[in-house]
Amino acid sequence: MIVAMQDRATEEEIQAVVERMMEIGFNVHRTTGTVQTILAGVGTPGAFDHKEFEVLAGVAEVIRISSPYKLAGRSFRPEGTVVRFPNGVRVGGDEVIVMAGPCSVESREQIFACAGLVKAAGAKFLRGGAFKPRSSPYSFQGLGLDALRLLREAGDAHGLLIVSEVMEISQIEQMMPFVDLFQVGARNMQNFNLLRELGDVRRPVLLKRGIAATIEELLLSAEYLLAGGNYDVILCERGIRTFETYTRNTMDISAIPVVKKLSHLPIVGDPSHGTGRRDKVPAMARATIAAGGDGLLIEVHPNPDKALSDGAQSLFPEQFAELMDALRIIAPAVGRTLQPS
Amino acid sequence: MIVAMQDRATEEEIQAVVERMMEIGFNVHRTTGTVQTILAGVGTPGAFDHKEFEVLAGVAEVIRISSPYKLAGRSFRPEGTVVRFPNGVRVGGDEVIVMAGPCSVESREQIFACAGLVKAAGAKFLRGGAFKPRSSPYSFQGLGLDALRLLREAGDAHGLLIVSEVMEISQIEQMMPFVDLFQVGARNMQNFNLLRELGDVRRPVLLKRGIAATIEELLLSAEYLLAGGNYDVILCERGIRTFETYTRNTMDISAIPVVKKLSHLPIVGDPSHGTGRRDKVPAMARATIAAGGDGLLIEVHPNPDKALSDGAQSLFPEQFAELMDALRIIAPAVGRTLQPS
Amino acid sequence: MIVAMQDRATEEEIQAVVERMMEIGFNVHRTTGTVQTILAGVGTPGAFDHKEFEVLAGVAEVIRISSPYKLAGRSFRPEGTVVRFPNGVRVGGDEVIVMAGPCSVESREQIFACAGLVKAAGAKFLRGGAFKPRSSPYSFQGLGLDALRLLREAGDAHGLLIVSEVMEISQIEQMMPFVDLFQVGARNMQNFNLLRELGDVRRPVLLKRGIAATIEELLLSAEYLLAGGNYDVILCERGIRTFETYTRNTMDISAIPVVKKLSHLPIVGDPSHGTGRRDKVPAMARATIAAGGDGLLIEVHPNPDKALSDGAQSLFPEQFAELMDALRIIAPAVGRTLQPS
Amino acid sequence: MIVAMQDRATEEEIQAVVERMMEIGFNVHRTTGTVQTILAGVGTPGAFDHKEFEVLAGVAEVIRISSPYKLAGRSFRPEGTVVRFPNGVRVGGDEVIVMAGPCSVESREQIFACAGLVKAAGAKFLRGGAFKPRSSPYSFQGLGLDALRLLREAGDAHGLLIVSEVMEISQIEQMMPFVDLFQVGARNMQNFNLLRELGDVRRPVLLKRGIAATIEELLLSAEYLLAGGNYDVILCERGIRTFETYTRNTMDISAIPVVKKLSHLPIVGDPSHGTGRRDKVPAMARATIAAGGDGLLIEVHPNPDKALSDGAQSLFPEQFAELMDALRIIAPAVGRTLQPS
Repeated sequence: MIVAMQDRATEEEIQAVVERMMEIGFNVHRTTGTVQTILAGVGTPGAFDHKEFEVLAGVAEVIRISSPYKLAGRSFRPEGTVVRFPNGVRVGGDEVIVMAGPCSVESREQIFACAGLVKAAGAKFLRGGAFKPRSSPYSFQGLGLDALRLLREAGDAHGLLIVSEVMEISQIEQMMPFVDLFQVGARNMQNFNLLRELGDVRRPVLLKRGIAATIEELLLSAEYLLAGGNYDVILCERGIRTFETYTRNTMDISAIPVVKKLSHLPIVGDPSHGTGRRDKVPAMARATIAAGGDGLLIEVHPNPDKALSDGAQSLFPEQFAELMDALRIIAPAVGRTLQPS
Repeated sequence: MIVAMQDRATEEEIQAVVERMMEIGFNVHRTTGTVQTILAGVGTPGAFDHKEFEVLAGVAEVIRISSPYKLAGRSFRPEGTVVRFPNGVRVGGDEVIVMAGPCSVESREQIFACAGLVKAAGAKFLRGGAFKPRSSPYSFQGLGLDALRLLREAGDAHGLLIVSEVMEISQIEQMMPFVDLFQVGARNMQNFNLLRELGDVRRPVLLKRGIAATIEELLLSAEYLLAGGNYDVILCERGIRTFETYTRNTMDISAIPVVKKLSHLPIVGDPSHGTGRRDKVPAMARATIAAGGDGLLIEVHPNPDKALSDGAQSLFPEQFAELMDALRIIAPAVGRTLQPS
Repeated sequence: MIVAMQDRATEEEIQAVVERMMEIGFNVHRTTGTVQTILAGVGTPGAFDHKEFEVLAGVAEVIRISSPYKLAGRSFRPEGTVVRFPNGVRVGGDEVIVMAGPCSVESREQIFACAGLVKAAGAKFLRGGAFKPRSSPYSFQGLGLDALRLLREAGDAHGLLIVSEVMEISQIEQMMPFVDLFQVGARNMQNFNLLRELGDVRRPVLLKRGIAATIEELLLSAEYLLAGGNYDVILCERGIRTFETYTRNTMDISAIPVVKKLSHLPIVGDPSHGTGRRDKVPAMARATIAAGGDGLLIEVHPNPDKALSDGAQSLFPEQFAELMDALRIIAPAVGRTLQPS
Repeated sequence: MIVAMQDRATEEEIQAVVERMMEIGFNVHRTTGTVQTILAGVGTPGAFDHKEFEVLAGVAEVIRISSPYKLAGRSFRPEGTVVRFPNGVRVGGDEVIVMAGPCSVESREQIFACAGLVKAAGAKFLRGGAFKPRSSPYSFQGLGLDALRLLREAGDAHGLLIVSEVMEISQIEQMMPFVDLFQVGARNMQNFNLLRELGDVRRPVLLKRGIAATIEELLLSAEYLLAGGNYDVILCERGIRTFETYTRNTMDISAIPVVKKLSHLPIVGDPSHGTGRRDKVPAMARATIAAGGDGLLIEVHPNPDKALSDGAQSLFPEQFAELMDALRIIAPAVGRTLQPS
């Protein structure tokens, strides 16, 4: 931690800050300039809130130097993390991995049709929502456990892994038999109790960035999972809220190279939620892979016009197949491949 | 709902949109201009996603006209809601109501000291956190049930009502004997399962705006509570995330007059979280009341420098007393009062 | 400047950074922790771009310590600046100063009516636009020089000072006989050529914050004026762009106490542009003064429904008078007064 | 324009709105629902401010239907605009066009070295700043006219077109002999006087999006150029300001497919300013092209560590050549090519 004192700070104020820094366990190095004194705290103090220094008398600025996450930082695993699945699929390796399917599981017919088409186009995961809390209390809320059973069946029938969103601690146990990858949604990115529980589970987690979360906060949430012993974490960029209203969110493609520098964890993109509009999804999916993303999470529906939720952002089957072909051209530009089905 | 067609939309495209609108239950009024056709849907269709129209062929723009909340809208109760508490305190009436106390309950001594000083200055509620999930897994996490007991005792000893944050459904039952007002934190503003449960409870709820939530989304979350039958809802502005980094959040004071126009629910401000810095709290507290806010939620600590959490944004006792005096001068400018203790 | 090296930085990388820091004129203090090395540069180097250090090998983070503005900083004039006008009016002193008038000068009749009514309510300045570049090429563009003449006449007739916006360097000379205070609009906050010229003028300047400008950037723009020798600078908060769309902009009331801490310059608020809606102006005007603002810039029109520009955000005469009465109640809460007319 | 009345609007209020709509030239279609009345104004009224309706009594919401730009809209030229340059280069056609060079022209040696290396890698334009107003009054401000002469010479020597930024009306005439493409910077996107002048010039203009500008505002600024008769306009996405601070700006890649839908104008990306960090530039350049961008504007310097401005975001020569190779792989995925040098 660095504490920069104000130009007019008195010696007494400086001493008070030094003492407080020592009290919480820092070794303090003092640099006295002609106008300003700077205090560098080194060492590994116990937990403290660096904000408390901001309001001490005579302090101009407080800067946290060491990143607040340790296990999620690149230096913890400089070579990068590859998340391995039972059937040999790897996220974070040489291959670009696509996870696709409908927003919600609506029926056996729908999810089997979906599984067939996404598999044919080259996806490795089938996605689908079982529990769908919605911002309006008057909308379709998901099929629950039945959805999970259907997902598993459809996935097994087509050799696809399953990813689905977990909303609450009580669902973890329920979902274990059915999913290969737990998805934590953007609204739960800072549901620390849920993260703590998922840290104890021996199953990979896909952690979505909140719409108002900085990259640092995303990595700090990942830290909760890693600190619990679950190292199989995949991050997901899905758009942040900005002043631009034409798109539902602004998909922050630059988060991909930033995460690649700061962390060892793989990161995928979700252009369906990132844009909220089907006609923008292919462009943003291609951009994600071109920027170095490890994969994609995409909404596809056999008949988007009849979808019970998020139809407007779901791709038509033929659009999805075309997109996969375009990604096959792009992947080699970043030293990656995307296998045919 | 209004659907504006593109200038070049064909008659076939227009007909397809009209049919889909009728299919979901709208009466459609068509306005054909020299360059553009506009379709107005009136009536009360079943649940549907207006986004689906945005991606239909030939559509330029889709505009939802009726607000997505009904019970939270001003027209539901034009005269405004006053939330009444057992001891006669009213939020949303003529009196400005202040809720104050520490971020976390740390000890019997601390919370009793706090209760005494906030009461003396004129507060009507004692606030204090019992469950404290933190963004870092390495910080103080609260005293839990013990905190609630201490709060109740301290409140009763000084004639103060109790407000404390509920984080999970399972805590509602536990907290019932101890709190007069359930606080829902900014991160849980869209935890719809929690809101649904609180809608069933016969106890007032203080609902904080999320840092990336629009005012419309805040009112839609309130709608969950009202739809469940709980009409005693108090809203709270506590800062939104913007590009400005000097303050932790940007407290959106204009949300106060906006909510007053759109909704009948009372709204208070939380300048402690709204700014994150003690030295900015009094100014923003005064601004909240001057803008027409119904009250305040403020962090005060008998010894902020030793607080286990949020010390940097907690007021010193004498600052709090001074602030209350300033508010007593301001309240009459908006037709309000703030009683002496 | 502080340079924090990465945990794995090599000695060679550290040396390269140290050398570059010395090359540009820093004395370097090195702090070597168990995991991380921190380099503090002190002294007064020539101009350099601190970003260049961010991309040097082995660097984790670069932090500029001393603020990039000097003359605008509080420590340059701890007692605060009071801007004095010929007729004895002072901005930044004990009295709250209100500047009011129409968006654009439209006619002799309109501006004289306006001057009369704002004077009667207690304003000290008459505002009015002469040059009105608009975001649409198809709108009313202002009366130009004629508007300035009318402003001056109307102001003189009622004992009001004149403030009007300068858009280009070429207008400065033209405007000198007519205005007491040059207004620099939000879009020109970083028009550095214009600022440089205004720095040479011996007349006060009202500098508005850009809608995407941080407080630091506002102070850096003020520095241009001060560096040119013009110390009579008044800052103005008029709303920033955020994700909230109900209001045109989000007026950042917290900028007022922040500027008061960081700088010695007075700051006023412009709730008309800060909200874009007449029905929100009084609440935000009251909030500005309650938060410690030195004054207000407000749009008032004798007949807003017929205004040629910005009618929707202009107050009716009686609204303005009522607001002034409310401000008279609030001012003493912050140790200020607002004189009757 | 659509005006939605409040549920409780009186017939009198409705009539007043209808009359005002007719007064400004609308034909009014009235739709009366069971709870709400909706008024659709069609026709082509004179200039008016739709905001004025928002504050009329009984009005719930006002929605502008027709886009405020006409000439910049897709329907004006559905086939898309291709901007043609004297030497046969076309922006907006099948080929991806790269414009590259240093932030500022620093010396003959520097700019000739740059021209050689960007040409060798396949760029078609040489970029370089002549006038450099900086946010700090204490930084390097550019070589001015000398820079323009050097640019032209270096460009001619290597068969490169020239693009450079124009800051003020007075520079247009000066720059005419030296540049093939006038660049309007982000800070001048709403300098309407400058845009109006450039609308009169018969030379292409590259218009950068402001950091707080919506896509609609960008197109409205383009409208100024088109309305003046200059149809050779190229748009440029260069990052918007958001709450994320790790990158200088958040490059809004989704603006590319959005502009492609809304407008006929070509759009390129500027990943150097879009990220502010060299190590993020290649990823965002690839993403721009993968998303369908027509080209790129990139800062390259023969020796970035010694650059007088923006060194931190300038690519090394070998990075630039590698990037161009990657773009050659990606272009076919969007039906484009990038020719070898």
